[in-house]
Amino acid sequence: MEQRVSVITLGVADLERAKRFYTALGWRTNTDPSLDVAFFQAGGMVVALWGRGQLAEDSVVEDAPGWGGVTLAHNVRSPEEVDRVIDDARAAGATIGREGAETFWGGYSGVFIDPDGHPWEVAHNPRWTVADDGSVRLGD
Amino acid sequence: MEQRVSVITLGVADLERAKRFYTALGWRTNTDPSLDVAFFQAGGMVVALWGRGQLAEDSVVEDAPGWGGVTLAHNVRSPEEVDRVIDDARAAGATIGREGAETFWGGYSGVFIDPDGHPWEVAHNPRWTVADDGSVRLGD
Repeated sequence: MEQRVSVITLGVADLERAKRFYTALGWRTNTDPSLDVAFFQAGGMVVALWGRGQLAEDSVVEDAPGWGGVTLAHNVRSPEEVDRVIDDARAAGATIGREGAETFWGGYSGVFIDPDGHPWEVAHNPRWTVADDGSVRLGD
Repeated sequence: MEQRVSVITLGVADLERAKRFYTALGWRTNTDPSLDVAFFQAGGMVVALWGRGQLAEDSVVEDAPGWGGVTLAHNVRSPEEVDRVIDDARAAGATIGREGAETFWGGYSGVFIDPDGHPWEVAHNPRWTVADDGSVRLGD
């Protein structure tokens, strides 16, 4: 198995609400709006939004409420950019888990929670490189 | 907010077990093994393994058992490669959710569940392109 992820699918309760949220954050999809799914090209991978029940069935997991133990992160190039993205998420309707602040690992981050409960850390890690195309490289 | 994901962190109950699983699938990490986290460079992003309780606290979510509504997918270049990755996952100790088979959307896929319950779809989508570097492009 190659060392990569092709798609992250986020299960959502209301596809139109979820599309509005990510669109308000500046994301764009070319998926036919009449379909029951939305695909966002995200660098060399894809983020998809799909009904949570359909995704559970397709993934052969029990659709039991709770937290599955997955957090996404969006790394940016400065602490100021962390604050800006957290503010944009708040304006788009996210719940702010924590405001941007210095972290125990020597960086700066905040957390927002999307309308379906998916947490996103927004982080500046001074030891990692964020390239012009948005790709991230480990420092070690 | 740029349209990209930098890190996917999978919360795990036993970091050594999780590292053994992904290493058995062929993945490699350069993270100092004495640390309580492991980072895998995965194309232009990073997959991290971290203790589930620590991740929940850091993500400001309740560590309630259940399924959070996130499925990862690993897209490959042929149906035969789907079967091969599913077999490799089985050999590494995954639970197989479903074997490779034709899908309702015109592709071919199977699902494995990692030791911490994280589902991965392994998929061949004939309308999407998997480049030599593993990056995936939407067909539309």
